[in-house]
Amino acid sequence: MDRVLSGMRPTGKLHLGHLHGVLQNWKELQDKYECFYFVADWHALTTDYKISHEIKNNTIEMVADWLAVGLNPEKSTLFIQSKVKEHAELHLLLSMITPLGWLERNPTYKEMKNEIKNKDINNYGFLGYPVLQTADIIIYHAKYVPVGMDQIPHLELSREIARRFNFIYKTNFFIEPEPILTDFAKIPGIDGRKMSKSYNNAIFISDKGKDLEKKVLNLVTDTHRVRRTDPGDPERCLAYNFHKIYCTENELEMINKECPKAGIGCFDCKKILLKRISEKLAPIQEKREKYISNKNLILDILEEGSNKAKKIAKETVDKVNEIIGLKY
Amino acid sequence: MDRVLSGMRPTGKLHLGHLHGVLQNWKELQDKYECFYFVADWHALTTDYKISHEIKNNTIEMVADWLAVGLNPEKSTLFIQSKVKEHAELHLLLSMITPLGWLERNPTYKEMKNEIKNKDINNYGFLGYPVLQTADIIIYHAKYVPVGMDQIPHLELSREIARRFNFIYKTNFFIEPEPILTDFAKIPGIDGRKMSKSYNNAIFISDKGKDLEKKVLNLVTDTHRVRRTDPGDPERCLAYNFHKIYCTENELEMINKECPKAGIGCFDCKKILLKRISEKLAPIQEKREKYISNKNLILDILEEGSNKAKKIAKETVDKVNEIIGLKY
Repeated sequence: MDRVLSGMRPTGKLHLGHLHGVLQNWKELQDKYECFYFVADWHALTTDYKISHEIKNNTIEMVADWLAVGLNPEKSTLFIQSKVKEHAELHLLLSMITPLGWLERNPTYKEMKNEIKNKDINNYGFLGYPVLQTADIIIYHAKYVPVGMDQIPHLELSREIARRFNFIYKTNFFIEPEPILTDFAKIPGIDGRKMSKSYNNAIFISDKGKDLEKKVLNLVTDTHRVRRTDPGDPERCLAYNFHKIYCTENELEMINKECPKAGIGCFDCKKILLKRISEKLAPIQEKREKYISNKNLILDILEEGSNKAKKIAKETVDKVNEIIGLKY
Repeated sequence: MDRVLSGMRPTGKLHLGHLHGVLQNWKELQDKYECFYFVADWHALTTDYKISHEIKNNTIEMVADWLAVGLNPEKSTLFIQSKVKEHAELHLLLSMITPLGWLERNPTYKEMKNEIKNKDINNYGFLGYPVLQTADIIIYHAKYVPVGMDQIPHLELSREIARRFNFIYKTNFFIEPEPILTDFAKIPGIDGRKMSKSYNNAIFISDKGKDLEKKVLNLVTDTHRVRRTDPGDPERCLAYNFHKIYCTENELEMINKECPKAGIGCFDCKKILLKRISEKLAPIQEKREKYISNKNLILDILEEGSNKAKKIAKETVDKVNEIIGLKY
């Protein structure tokens, strides 16, 4: 069975953007591939080395969401990057053959350097994170990496580093990982921008009750519709982006009919949405609470997964050392 | 007892420059400190990743010299860097907090980039070797590092990285290593340049018989002394640099008296030198042969030392993970 690898920085509770953009995809891949999903805690350090004390708790909150959504430790290997020290070793070995220029020209690197103003990220490790990412992938001989469009240049870099290793050491030991491009409904944040914890515009998977109600019922609707009696246009309505994901065909049909003739008010319309989101999240939240009330279970799952991952990673690095000539 | 740490890239057989510039010093430090001496095989990869298959044999040849000269595995920990994976882990963690600018402004980096034309060293790992070097040192809480003048900026960089770690994580866990500056007779190569294997001008510790004779007797003497009957000047004589190290006081006195009045010929004068060098090297070579004829003994010593080093390194990295917050 081909292997899939993907990781996520431990940022804490996940939101609906993660759920629809990543987790549902990860869950489906479990049945078709041998999947390795990891907590990229070392990657978190590349930008957040100053708040590293938050990593452990963020990991637990994040993995609670993973498990609640249906990532299954019986099917997939769920592990913590920093528990598999071999990633660091392979990262070091790959650093020796990775041209600086490849990293300096990395578009995400340049973009993030320009965008991130509130953190000092001008560090060696931040420049080198694609090297670490490459080690993460090829150490498991992962054939596929599920990525969004924006991650394609990174994966290309990983392919190039793998290829360069094979070329320099006259081997075909590493396979070049391929992207699995996923097509999913883009979900906006409650302010209309991309949903992101750092924008403070996220609906979290764990949101419920008053919190969820407030976020959903406050969603901006068609701003041209000032009075209840004004006709509206779902395509100008922020909330409708959520309706499209969570409501039934019948509901959408009704809304498309009624809204333009002021047959339904925005408040009532969002009540329908709230009900649907709550329904969708309820079973996930129930599972989530079971896990979060037993953090040791989460840590045990990660420990077991890390041991499983380590076995494979160690075999790879042993072989790499043999290829390079560092076997004594 | 304070700890001393130093390492050497595995370049194969060592020469008289190493013997007088480094090894004799290392040997003396053994009695005053708890010494850790390591084969810097990962450092070798920063420039020689394309000829990495030579590293194992070079390690054996080099450590045979270490042992022959008197480095004593009962007193000092002799180990191989790549066998202590924790160096790679600490290197990765330090990479997150090491400003790129510190590395780019490193004078040796700029110098080597200009000087080394026959190898492609424009790689990520080469830029970062001071980070690895820092990990090598502080992972053992080494208080002292024996260095030549040219290594002072590197050690300063290591001190700064240690300080920055302590500052960011509000700790005083790492101590800032201090240099032990060693004053030793500079020994030229047989062509008058700095003695170096890559200049092909070295007298090796293992040189004997015809090989040694040829190198010593061909040493250039005072070029103003064309005929045997011309008076000479020891200060203009390349060979005399060696006399000063290997000959007795009486011999030097005689030479200083006779050479300027052509009382001794250059050939005879170098015969004296040859005898003294041979005498000095003979017991070392005898020990060396015992080791080199039992390579497994060398590897066992390094294995044992590496295990000893690993124990300490692991404790350090565990503690670092605790400080950073990567303890699950």
